[in-house]
Amino acid sequence: MKAKMKDGSKADIKAIWFENGKVRMIDQRELPLELVIVDFDDYRDVAEAIRNMTTRGAPCIGASAAYAMCLAGLKDEDLDEAAKFIKAARPTAYDLFYATDWMYAKLKAGADPIEAADEYSNITVDKCRAIGKFGGELIKDGMTLMTHCNAGALATVDVGTALAPMRQAHDDGKEFFVYASETRPRLQGMQLTAWELNQEDIDHAIIPDGSAAYYMSKGVDMIIVGADRIAANGDFANKIGTFDKAIVAKHFGIPFYVAAPVSTFDFNTGSGKDIVIEQRSETEMTEVKGIRIAPIGSKAMNPAFDVTPAEFVTGFITEKGIFKPSEISRMKE
Amino acid sequence: MKAKMKDGSKADIKAIWFENGKVRMIDQRELPLELVIVDFDDYRDVAEAIRNMTTRGAPCIGASAAYAMCLAGLKDEDLDEAAKFIKAARPTAYDLFYATDWMYAKLKAGADPIEAADEYSNITVDKCRAIGKFGGELIKDGMTLMTHCNAGALATVDVGTALAPMRQAHDDGKEFFVYASETRPRLQGMQLTAWELNQEDIDHAIIPDGSAAYYMSKGVDMIIVGADRIAANGDFANKIGTFDKAIVAKHFGIPFYVAAPVSTFDFNTGSGKDIVIEQRSETEMTEVKGIRIAPIGSKAMNPAFDVTPAEFVTGFITEKGIFKPSEISRMKE
Repeated sequence: MKAKMKDGSKADIKAIWFENGKVRMIDQRELPLELVIVDFDDYRDVAEAIRNMTTRGAPCIGASAAYAMCLAGLKDEDLDEAAKFIKAARPTAYDLFYATDWMYAKLKAGADPIEAADEYSNITVDKCRAIGKFGGELIKDGMTLMTHCNAGALATVDVGTALAPMRQAHDDGKEFFVYASETRPRLQGMQLTAWELNQEDIDHAIIPDGSAAYYMSKGVDMIIVGADRIAANGDFANKIGTFDKAIVAKHFGIPFYVAAPVSTFDFNTGSGKDIVIEQRSETEMTEVKGIRIAPIGSKAMNPAFDVTPAEFVTGFITEKGIFKPSEISRMKE
Repeated sequence: MKAKMKDGSKADIKAIWFENGKVRMIDQRELPLELVIVDFDDYRDVAEAIRNMTTRGAPCIGASAAYAMCLAGLKDEDLDEAAKFIKAARPTAYDLFYATDWMYAKLKAGADPIEAADEYSNITVDKCRAIGKFGGELIKDGMTLMTHCNAGALATVDVGTALAPMRQAHDDGKEFFVYASETRPRLQGMQLTAWELNQEDIDHAIIPDGSAAYYMSKGVDMIIVGADRIAANGDFANKIGTFDKAIVAKHFGIPFYVAAPVSTFDFNTGSGKDIVIEQRSETEMTEVKGIRIAPIGSKAMNPAFDVTPAEFVTGFITEKGIFKPSEISRMKE
């Protein structure tokens, strides 16, 4: 991804990479106001960076785990101990366990630690780049797009999923405009997506979550969002607020795309009814920087995701191509 | 409205009233964390309270102007000077000008200042109470409701518009639950509506603006919102986010009501197309308590209202009864 450096220059960086014997990563806790790069030469410190959310986003957590194992391998540390320590960093990220095991097997088989970790990271990024190629073709000069939450490079090492087609179209010289809905309560749309678009000089504006109908009624050509899990029938879970936008988009006849790698499809989950929604702490709603902003005595509800039925999806943009919900079984093959 | 006092007792108070030679009002800037009552015996201080938003909401601003004129009358001050000073407190509130002129005429005709101001205030509250009577009948035991922004007692001296049916149903002993969407960027749903519901012990929860589809899909029986302006054809302007909820409600077949006094209908405005939407400062989006939370270089858009077409309205709950959009011309008569 492009990043604007303090001296005014532009750099092409990733959310995490290996350089001069160290793992370097963007400290995502400092965004959007400052771009801070931190580095580590001990796997325990990388695990701590996963735990304290210096780095976040499932694919990016996977790459971080791979680079943590890389450090353990470079220093000839006990790999079983390292793998156990790294896997304990976050409780539920599938990518964390998968990447740690993947690297463990590579290292046990005698692979070069840096080459192996880079390979893991590149696989992730290559999928995003392919999503960008397929999705970028949908974006035409002069279009107005809308996205929600952050499905960008910060979450996937580089390029992103929902933002991949936008990066590709921008690199191809197309001009378009993006509405980034702010995504309460954690404001990933405002603080991460808008930051990424700003770094790339893609024309955009942050809008309130409740203004989707207002702006769609004035003219939006396409919605592109990411997905946290896609069921076998095409129902998908994504950040709370996605379902509202899908219904509003359908009302206005606006194409609604979901960008995600094939690995996001969970063929063991028949439909959205089988997806359990995480209910997060109400303090994400009722407090700002530790200061209560809601009335004492009022409770808040904070569902992290909603499930949008397949009928609202125009197409899934994957690294294998664009598929309609009815074509998911074909994609599986 | 009910209010919980610091000693644990419950009081029945208004947003503004006259008592012992002084105008008393809730300092709405201190909500939702503290209930602070301030008082004034000089009309200039009441005008300043309107200006600095100690009191807000068009009907409540009207009553505040009436009580300011009342103070000028009690002290035998120059009424022309007072009216000019009070009208300058806020630039666009129609109620401010209307109430000041109404009181000016009453005082010039020799009316008792306190009686006249109380009369003005009571007319406002009586309309809300009538809205509550008609709307309250729609609410059945066990229902789940949803509202947006604040159309409550704080904005209308007492009772409110969208909250009037809920107060009435609660007073009638009905049990129901209310989702109050937080209403970014100024959070009137979280900070005012939830505060009022909490004071009345009406069961409720604050939800993110983007979770309307999530909760409606799980079961909501009715939406009730307020309105800032209603066109002759039934299109209406209300806080940004209303239109999204109306589209989502229609998708799920949930009745969608608009509660407002007849004075909110602007028969000189043919349709929603003629309603100009105020665009507010982007810092309401990008800053919290003066601290920037958005990326430097990203712009934000902050439309204060959206316009929901009449086709989404099940009924308008007014002090004269409940009218379908097709019955507006009958209501006019």
